[in-house]
Amino acid sequence: MEYLHTMVRVHDLEASLDFYCNKLGLKEISRKENEKGKFTLVFLAAGGDEQMAKDTKAPMIELTYNWPDSDGNVEEYDKGRNFGHLAYRVENIYATCQALRDAGVDINRPPRDGYMAFIKSPDGISIELLQKGDKLEPQEPWSSMENIGSW
Amino acid sequence: MEYLHTMVRVHDLEASLDFYCNKLGLKEISRKENEKGKFTLVFLAAGGDEQMAKDTKAPMIELTYNWPDSDGNVEEYDKGRNFGHLAYRVENIYATCQALRDAGVDINRPPRDGYMAFIKSPDGISIELLQKGDKLEPQEPWSSMENIGSW
Repeated sequence: MEYLHTMVRVHDLEASLDFYCNKLGLKEISRKENEKGKFTLVFLAAGGDEQMAKDTKAPMIELTYNWPDSDGNVEEYDKGRNFGHLAYRVENIYATCQALRDAGVDINRPPRDGYMAFIKSPDGISIELLQKGDKLEPQEPWSSMENIGSW
Repeated sequence: MEYLHTMVRVHDLEASLDFYCNKLGLKEISRKENEKGKFTLVFLAAGGDEQMAKDTKAPMIELTYNWPDSDGNVEEYDKGRNFGHLAYRVENIYATCQALRDAGVDINRPPRDGYMAFIKSPDGISIELLQKGDKLEPQEPWSSMENIGSW
């Protein structure tokens, strides 16, 4: 038995790909458009997992985009408490958070401890970023940065 | 950047470990009890991913169990639509579903097509089971089994 992926639903595929790929840095591995079911699936993997994902040995994230109905409406997805977050390990948490900030992403829980940060996807999915290896030394502006909202 | 885990919150740790380990067949890789924060984290991996998970190269599922408050109450976790499901690949989807059924787990979406099934965790997390490799031949009682509820 092998873990394949975690699926999240996205209200706006373009905004979500901008967030997950351009800002967070995940790579698109494959995509399926289903005309009959009126949905698009996009499989994403972190850069360090790309080859493994291509070899069909996940871990991956599956974005499900349900197409607009006949009135042009797309469902807005609410958040529940039973699902917590997706977690990624990064090479340098300050560099990752700076790049996200520069791209306009709120750092909801800044890496004050040089180790852990939280951001949110456009659909409110919490994403945990964890420093690879040991904690980094506390560093401004991060060490005195306040939280923003919830995550 | 590497994908580490997906975290889900569990209302009843014992019932959840019974579901995820005894019934679904995941393995406990590690556990952290946090007295100060009053929570327990349990990291689980599928059997085929066990060594990889132990080498700290996930993919894993993290269960978060927040301990009862001073009145003995534990939060009940609701389900949101932004999170979809966790997906696992299995060797034989009929054998997996039969074992789950024998253990009292509803097969919400039976594997009528010899390929895909859905079940739910005690906290309403949808879990997709996918047949490894090609679809199996349709087989009773699965091929004429009705759906149960939603997933």
